Amino acid sequence: MPIDPHSEIIVFAYSWVPEMAKGYVRDLRARWALEEAGLGYKTRTLHAGEERPDWFLAEQPFGQVPALIDGDIHLFESGAILLHLAEKSEVLMPKDPQDRASTQSWLLAAFNSVESFVFELFFVNIIFRKEEWAKLRKPSAEDFLRRRLAPIDKALTGKDYLVGPFTVADIAMATVLREANDHLGLADFANLDAYLKRCLARPAFQRALDAQMADFTGPPPAAPAN
Amino acid sequence: MPIDPHSEIIVFAYSWVPEMAKGYVRDLRARWALEEAGLGYKTRTLHAGEERPDWFLAEQPFGQVPALIDGDIHLFESGAILLHLAEKSEVLMPKDPQDRASTQSWLLAAFNSVESFVFELFFVNIIFRKEEWAKLRKPSAEDFLRRRLAPIDKALTGKDYLVGPFTVADIAMATVLREANDHLGLADFANLDAYLKRCLARPAFQRALDAQMADFTGPPPAAPAN
Repeated sequence: MPIDPHSEIIVFAYSWVPEMAKGYVRDLRARWALEEAGLGYKTRTLHAGEERPDWFLAEQPFGQVPALIDGDIHLFESGAILLHLAEKSEVLMPKDPQDRASTQSWLLAAFNSVESFVFELFFVNIIFRKEEWAKLRKPSAEDFLRRRLAPIDKALTGKDYLVGPFTVADIAMATVLREANDHLGLADFANLDAYLKRCLARPAFQRALDAQMADFTGPPPAAPAN
Repeated sequence: MPIDPHSEIIVFAYSWVPEMAKGYVRDLRARWALEEAGLGYKTRTLHAGEERPDWFLAEQPFGQVPALIDGDIHLFESGAILLHLAEKSEVLMPKDPQDRASTQSWLLAAFNSVESFVFELFFVNIIFRKEEWAKLRKPSAEDFLRRRLAPIDKALTGKDYLVGPFTVADIAMATVLREANDHLGLADFANLDAYLKRCLARPAFQRALDAQMADFTGPPPAAPAN
């Protein structure tokens, strides 16, 4: 396991989150990349049900996890953390210039062109599920996400991973697709369905998931979290 | 003007878009970065009202612009294009490791943590404005975006730009804020309002905007575009 108390790499994670968020907190992406590359790290945890301290808001202006410290370097946003870690290991991004460009293209596609519309289904199905507008909005939100998934399904024809070798773009896309799959299933997208299973079957993903779950040792909040 | 018919850098753009999209198509980000760095480029245009040809879908799987060719390197997603161009000029990203990390963090914040929720207002205010759900959804969508803008407003206290010097993160954030401003105004966010005006007052932004507008030389579509 790359958990190493002497590591210079610190991942900020949570000691407590609501039940439905367990296994889905975005520090999973950083942990997965670190596990793939065999890079040791340690975690520093916050409680998602409590106000974020000022020192953490200086690390992560939105008060969310993950943030990462690598020696003297401080970063936030899981996409930026993936790009930073990718420079440390060819296992995460090949040195070939076209493969690098393709890794960056697909990583940004996951975060901007796909996850934006998964967020919308999260609002519709979870946060605002009791609202009238959410019921009315659901079909068009699902339709839009499907129209974003179809080209990726096509791009994966005959390929195991987006770029060729496994890269951080697959960590980005698979974590997004995992939630898309929860919301609408991937039965219409045979390549995406097989790709997601292939990504999640990687031992590094399972170790990352186990490590996130193992950090949830905090007590529930004193008052119900908003 | 960096438009140079002999350049190895090709930006894919549109020759026609609906009136309301003029000046807002995402090739603006690539053009702005190229103008800041003084890098020559040429454009290759498509018609937004016509079906995308297969050769373009191989450049950009979603059939959108921008895509970019730089010699032998092919990229898509405006965020990936900004990161690629940033490696070509210190005007776009300083070499200092912490400044690089901060540039990547803020760029990803713009594309994932902010623009995702601007898209939602675009749906509510433009695409689905006649739908009952859009009217019901609007207040909570505005509220969510405001809660994302407040920490950025705070982070800009006493600063001209997000990282220190101007970087591609400012191109990302300013183009996102420009649309946020159209949807809900920035009157409650004095730092953001001043920051957006400061970014858009840069001569390179104006040149990029003029260049996008100058490429809209195509005829309207034969049938109304969907």
